[in-house]
Amino acid sequence: MGNLKLLLQYDGTRYLGWQRQREEDPEHPRTIQGRLERVLGRLAGERVNLIGASRTDAGVHAEAQVANFHTTAPLAPGEVLAYCARYLPSDIAVRSVEEADPRFHARYLARRKRYVYRLWTRPYADVFHRRYSLHAAEPLEAAAMRRAAAFLVGEHDFRSFTSMRSKTKSPVRTLFALEVLEGADILELAFEADAFLPHMIRIITGTLLEVGAGRLDPQAMGPILEARERSAAGPLAPARGLCLTAIIY
Amino acid sequence: MGNLKLLLQYDGTRYLGWQRQREEDPEHPRTIQGRLERVLGRLAGERVNLIGASRTDAGVHAEAQVANFHTTAPLAPGEVLAYCARYLPSDIAVRSVEEADPRFHARYLARRKRYVYRLWTRPYADVFHRRYSLHAAEPLEAAAMRRAAAFLVGEHDFRSFTSMRSKTKSPVRTLFALEVLEGADILELAFEADAFLPHMIRIITGTLLEVGAGRLDPQAMGPILEARERSAAGPLAPARGLCLTAIIY
Repeated sequence: MGNLKLLLQYDGTRYLGWQRQREEDPEHPRTIQGRLERVLGRLAGERVNLIGASRTDAGVHAEAQVANFHTTAPLAPGEVLAYCARYLPSDIAVRSVEEADPRFHARYLARRKRYVYRLWTRPYADVFHRRYSLHAAEPLEAAAMRRAAAFLVGEHDFRSFTSMRSKTKSPVRTLFALEVLEGADILELAFEADAFLPHMIRIITGTLLEVGAGRLDPQAMGPILEARERSAAGPLAPARGLCLTAIIY
Repeated sequence: MGNLKLLLQYDGTRYLGWQRQREEDPEHPRTIQGRLERVLGRLAGERVNLIGASRTDAGVHAEAQVANFHTTAPLAPGEVLAYCARYLPSDIAVRSVEEADPRFHARYLARRKRYVYRLWTRPYADVFHRRYSLHAAEPLEAAAMRRAAAFLVGEHDFRSFTSMRSKTKSPVRTLFALEVLEGADILELAFEADAFLPHMIRIITGTLLEVGAGRLDPQAMGPILEARERSAAGPLAPARGLCLTAIIY
């Protein structure tokens, strides 16, 4: 029984997100997991259950998603790579395949995850970045965003920044870094955490955009975090600016 | 009578190229020029004849095309910019608009043009670069490509590198630079010339790819140039790797 580990990238625009849906048509999957499982299943000649490190939302992209699957088929990594290159749609790609330890589990063993939210900051809506960034039409004050972001770094109850309603699951996460990186045309918000709550990055981004535009004082971020109420934070930023950039084991 | 100068960018994937076609449906133009003229014509309330600096082929992109048009309508640059942002499709964008000298002519006054041909050189076909680069699946020897490229720099009869059949138009152009730039994942061929013959960049690229893959000796580039015969050169590289990056006046 082999355990194969895949490094993946995808343009999430056309998909309902990573996670396979129960009612999904197996012949026309609209999720990334569903698409991959169909191709891998045909190659393996058996049903494949692909474990993804991060369950990205509809429209979110990945430069470096990690996944693994167990199989009884004697598949060589090079064979999986070539088969996927041939049969996957052009918006999903397998970057590399390797044989992993039988105990390797892409999700449970992930220690940290990195995501980037990209904002296109020039006045015109860029043609080449439109699918992978949000057009920030108003000027943004990066220094203010940086001051606000500093309140969130560390171990906190992030209930103000999630759509999760569960009373049983913990809303505590450790945000190791939240950097505001200014390029010539792009402003990047780079997140690193042990894990993220549902919509956490996009709600933090929506709130930082309010700060950047001057509608919210950077100092307000402290009370927003302490409120532990979704209504205290800013709006949910659109999915297309978000990209999974690394899984750290 | 105003003369407005536009800086444009476009993703050429969906279009038949820059130049308006005679039989084009004015309500559903499939050329970049046709699309822009329709939007600008509605704003100006009169027929607009847009002059583009470079007539890019079907599928070729532009980061910085320059165009101008004369109009009797009293249009402010900011108004043109806002109207275009609203009514152009998302794969064409006006980066800036300014009032130009009445004698400014985007095509006749262009002194030099720059284009880049991008090659994606990793083994897997990248999801994020697929529309804007050619996947060079075989390893490329950049040093050999550089030696071959050196034969082409200068003023030459480029008949070997064009699809142009005219006996009356001059096939002589001055190639000021042809650089082979190696990045981590991308190899760029950067061209600068006074002007380019039809398909010139893509045929030079197709020939340099033969050199890079080791099927053609770099020294063969001299005799190919001297042959003045299209059949002496390599194949036409696909349009999607090519992008107009600057017009110099």
